[in-house]
Amino acid sequence: MKKTSRRQALGAALGGGLLAGAGKARAEDARTLGKPLSGYSERSPFVKSMRSTRQSKTPEAGSSATPLAETYGIITPSALHYERHHSGVPAIDPAQHRLVIHGLVERPLILTMDDIRRLPSVSRIHFLECGGNSGGEWGPKTGPDAQRACGLASCSEWTGVPLRLILNEVGLKPNASWLIAEGADACRMQRSVPIVKALDDALLAYGQNGEPLRPGQGFPLRLLTPGWEGNGQVKWLRSLEVTDQPGMTRDETSKYSDLMPDGKARIFTLPQEAKSVVTFPSGGQTLPGPGLYELTGLAWTGKGRIVRVEVTFDGGHTWRDTRLDEPRFRMAFTRFRLPWRWDGKPATIASRATDESGYVQPTREQLIEARGMNSGYHFNGIKLWKIAADGIVTNADV
Amino acid sequence: MKKTSRRQALGAALGGGLLAGAGKARAEDARTLGKPLSGYSERSPFVKSMRSTRQSKTPEAGSSATPLAETYGIITPSALHYERHHSGVPAIDPAQHRLVIHGLVERPLILTMDDIRRLPSVSRIHFLECGGNSGGEWGPKTGPDAQRACGLASCSEWTGVPLRLILNEVGLKPNASWLIAEGADACRMQRSVPIVKALDDALLAYGQNGEPLRPGQGFPLRLLTPGWEGNGQVKWLRSLEVTDQPGMTRDETSKYSDLMPDGKARIFTLPQEAKSVVTFPSGGQTLPGPGLYELTGLAWTGKGRIVRVEVTFDGGHTWRDTRLDEPRFRMAFTRFRLPWRWDGKPATIASRATDESGYVQPTREQLIEARGMNSGYHFNGIKLWKIAADGIVTNADV
Repeated sequence: MKKTSRRQALGAALGGGLLAGAGKARAEDARTLGKPLSGYSERSPFVKSMRSTRQSKTPEAGSSATPLAETYGIITPSALHYERHHSGVPAIDPAQHRLVIHGLVERPLILTMDDIRRLPSVSRIHFLECGGNSGGEWGPKTGPDAQRACGLASCSEWTGVPLRLILNEVGLKPNASWLIAEGADACRMQRSVPIVKALDDALLAYGQNGEPLRPGQGFPLRLLTPGWEGNGQVKWLRSLEVTDQPGMTRDETSKYSDLMPDGKARIFTLPQEAKSVVTFPSGGQTLPGPGLYELTGLAWTGKGRIVRVEVTFDGGHTWRDTRLDEPRFRMAFTRFRLPWRWDGKPATIASRATDESGYVQPTREQLIEARGMNSGYHFNGIKLWKIAADGIVTNADV
Repeated sequence: MKKTSRRQALGAALGGGLLAGAGKARAEDARTLGKPLSGYSERSPFVKSMRSTRQSKTPEAGSSATPLAETYGIITPSALHYERHHSGVPAIDPAQHRLVIHGLVERPLILTMDDIRRLPSVSRIHFLECGGNSGGEWGPKTGPDAQRACGLASCSEWTGVPLRLILNEVGLKPNASWLIAEGADACRMQRSVPIVKALDDALLAYGQNGEPLRPGQGFPLRLLTPGWEGNGQVKWLRSLEVTDQPGMTRDETSKYSDLMPDGKARIFTLPQEAKSVVTFPSGGQTLPGPGLYELTGLAWTGKGRIVRVEVTFDGGHTWRDTRLDEPRFRMAFTRFRLPWRWDGKPATIASRATDESGYVQPTREQLIEARGMNSGYHFNGIKLWKIAADGIVTNADV
């Protein structure tokens, strides 16, 4: 019975393609020799996915967003990883680069990249998300597609040295409680990291998806604080100063903080809370007609693993569980999927993630009720898409 | 005690870099604005890893090998994935591409890429290895570095449709026992696949490391038969013909078969047997001096998971266990690592993999004893590297 129903389901989806009889593939295919061997391959000219860019006052400062709806699995192609930088991407010669570890330590240290690469290392798959991702979702004008609504989030296999190993080596003084990380970009990006995170799962990362970091990801070295907002995972890392208090730097006080309705600001809200987005069907796409599809999307949380992603087809009245791809890594994208038959009627769809801490992704309305609309940071609300009878998918939050 | 010894270990490795006192990073660093935002990023100009190419009689036919010793983790950057093709890389418009499923089926089917992409899909990390990888290792002249000795092997996150789903849809006739897969390259590469593998874990893959397949990997569609020799995982897949016997095609009879000492050939030796290689230190590298290093390398097997990788420092007399990165996926690269102190004396190093079937990677001598030297295929022997007193690492198999 089950086999029959699956056959029927696929048959309906693929019915138009049934052959009248067995046949060989098209005779008109060209049989000319293809391109020769190469040392380094490019993508097909038929593949045109690009990051969408959004600059601030100059093209050196701004962000570029991953086309999430055009990615597969959980790995983001390195060339399409989101970027957010504040004074452009520096061109650093790794042979000249140094990392200094100083401050409240017994034995300050200066390390070359060669020093770092010979230390014990690990490789782990982690997402990165800008603390300002989905800033536009607070409204009034929300994002028309997954890229512009949620694309300042990406996921890679990172390789590097556990930071705890280096901190054990330099010897922390008793009052050591924070690190101030500083980048080698022109703005000398500085962010403070609690020492407890640095001793937990933080990495000094030099590898991304099998190769050295891309320049926009901090080549040759960046800090990784898995699951925490991207801005604190300082790129082009040149200095770690151990201190007894946070640096209260520009980007952790006036920026990347949450101005609440009462005029006070939440600061150091560092772990990114559980979030998800349906990437197919999603804004900007068109369903060619009723029938069977695979609904899919991505979920992530800064508090460990995703344990559940539900989807709604009726604007949030009822919810159905999806299938989560395994294995589900800590602080990594989790891909969810659900075979789904569209009946051709208008529908309002969305996903809702739950993480292992028990946290459930809130609605946009719940977020606004709790935090007001003074701030553009840390939006993780449910994102609704509207499917019209003609198959056109648009943003439902307008 | 343990903490102290780790400090001492790292201290020795990093001793030259100790700062006399706490200091800020170098004052001479430039503070000019960096590069602006971009839609698609390239790697740093300081990163120069390339595949090594080896052509046959024309540049369209040959192979290009992954620089394994320059990769991190288990993901191979798509641009550096090994390639082996027999008539060049065709430029296929995905809108025009079709897959025909015919032969011993109830309902022959022709599918567009849009049809395929809306079906239920999965993403899995798998290695691919050419059946001719390490062909030169049979000798007499073996490979000078990891790339040229073992580089026709790579690993990606693949996304696609389980082939069993399609075969259930078309309905196999009772005598269906093989598939003949055919590519759309000019040579119409054909290989036969037992139906049992097709119904087990085979995929119709269209995604690689988050993006569409690279052209050299079969864009827009390839067959994946996890763990089996690469040649059978037909790229630019255009036709699957269900049959009651193998096609006995050129590349499974005169090629990719093992001519044994008695003049008979083993054919359809499809699963790649357990193999490993130390990538650091490896041929072509130089250790700057005695001290602490992380030895690392890659292991894989076509028969499930790697369960153990040992290394020797004395040419195979004694062996030590390494640490395997988790999770270990079926039919995927497994990264092994071992902190290791080089005393500055000559050493002969190698790795030896064991998989969950109990199979242990043999020595080169054992392989030659069993299979002679008539054939260039399916070499999976232990690869030895020699470290000289001056730190220069070379091929020890000469």
